[in-house]
Amino acid sequence: MVKQGQFITFEGGEGAGKSTQIKMLVEHLKEKMILTHLTREPGGCDMAEKIRDLLVKGSVDTLDELSELLLFSAARHEHVRQKIRPLLDKNYCVISDRFYLSTYVYQSFAGGLDFDFVEMVTKKAIEGAEPNLTILLDIDPKVGLVRSMDNEITHDEKRFEGKDIKFHEKVRQGFLDAAKTSENIIVIDGSQDLEKVHQDIINELEKRDLI
Amino acid sequence: MVKQGQFITFEGGEGAGKSTQIKMLVEHLKEKMILTHLTREPGGCDMAEKIRDLLVKGSVDTLDELSELLLFSAARHEHVRQKIRPLLDKNYCVISDRFYLSTYVYQSFAGGLDFDFVEMVTKKAIEGAEPNLTILLDIDPKVGLVRSMDNEITHDEKRFEGKDIKFHEKVRQGFLDAAKTSENIIVIDGSQDLEKVHQDIINELEKRDLI
Repeated sequence: MVKQGQFITFEGGEGAGKSTQIKMLVEHLKEKMILTHLTREPGGCDMAEKIRDLLVKGSVDTLDELSELLLFSAARHEHVRQKIRPLLDKNYCVISDRFYLSTYVYQSFAGGLDFDFVEMVTKKAIEGAEPNLTILLDIDPKVGLVRSMDNEITHDEKRFEGKDIKFHEKVRQGFLDAAKTSENIIVIDGSQDLEKVHQDIINELEKRDLI
Repeated sequence: MVKQGQFITFEGGEGAGKSTQIKMLVEHLKEKMILTHLTREPGGCDMAEKIRDLLVKGSVDTLDELSELLLFSAARHEHVRQKIRPLLDKNYCVISDRFYLSTYVYQSFAGGLDFDFVEMVTKKAIEGAEPNLTILLDIDPKVGLVRSMDNEITHDEKRFEGKDIKFHEKVRQGFLDAAKTSENIIVIDGSQDLEKVHQDIINELEKRDLI
């Protein structure tokens, strides 16, 4: 049976392999004839892409964590209401490269912003569009950052990559801690062979009857 | 005695005469040798001006009220921390063309967004930078909108002016209601002769020992 209308998000630090794994998953879903839409955050719709430009370009210190939270949340809200919600309603399987867990981790856990405030703004912004499953690709930031230097990210989108290694280690810990608190977040070792990671992801999705 | 380090904001609907009156006040303060900085919202610093472009350009329906709130609040937070707070600390008299009362009125009272949420995000964004006085220039929107068609606002900054007359009437009522709840908001009849409005403003500021 073909399952549709699922919302699956990928999370993880820089260079964890999200883009590659998402492409492999999308191919797999298309082969299974599942209506699939691939999107990303920040971005995913016209207005949100404009906000993305403010967030990911420029120097590291242009914005503080509170402004980042507010901009990410505005972009996310437009992404949800203009794209994600309408596509889920049409039974698309929506796959997003990052969603709100990144905000929890980058702006609150690693960035120091009060978590209750971050959560409250986030819940308002997503209007109930909770992921059915979040796949956390875990990798040692020392390995991930070297990988991310070589990959396809354009060189003007380096604002978060530009932070120091301690920040990225906090990010990793934040993601792992979050995974412990929710059944809907699964951790997959991103340092494994690409095909092994892909197969782990498929297994988890099938086990949960999501695809 | 020269008073410094005051934060004075101007509010009001379209065409109420804010820009003109602010210019007249700034001239007056300069003649009195008061260190003065003129700014505006959304905008006032480099990042906030970029956010302004997203907010004031484009069609009326590009963003909903929640996204507007989040974008205005991000711009305001950067404006406060990069400009307003440092200038107040240097004893400048900071005059802003609009501040958070516009958000209360446009996004909550007229736009329908939950006030408690709007207030909570706003208080977080301004980090205690409350105006010493808010001058509300009140005008019938039928008169104000005609005025605003003729004034110096660039023609691509018409997103809010593009809303219908009922919206602008709600905006007016929202401002007037807010003024009733706070001693720090004074209402001045913006339909009067320019010099009379200017003198009313000076009188209020002097009466309160702010200049």
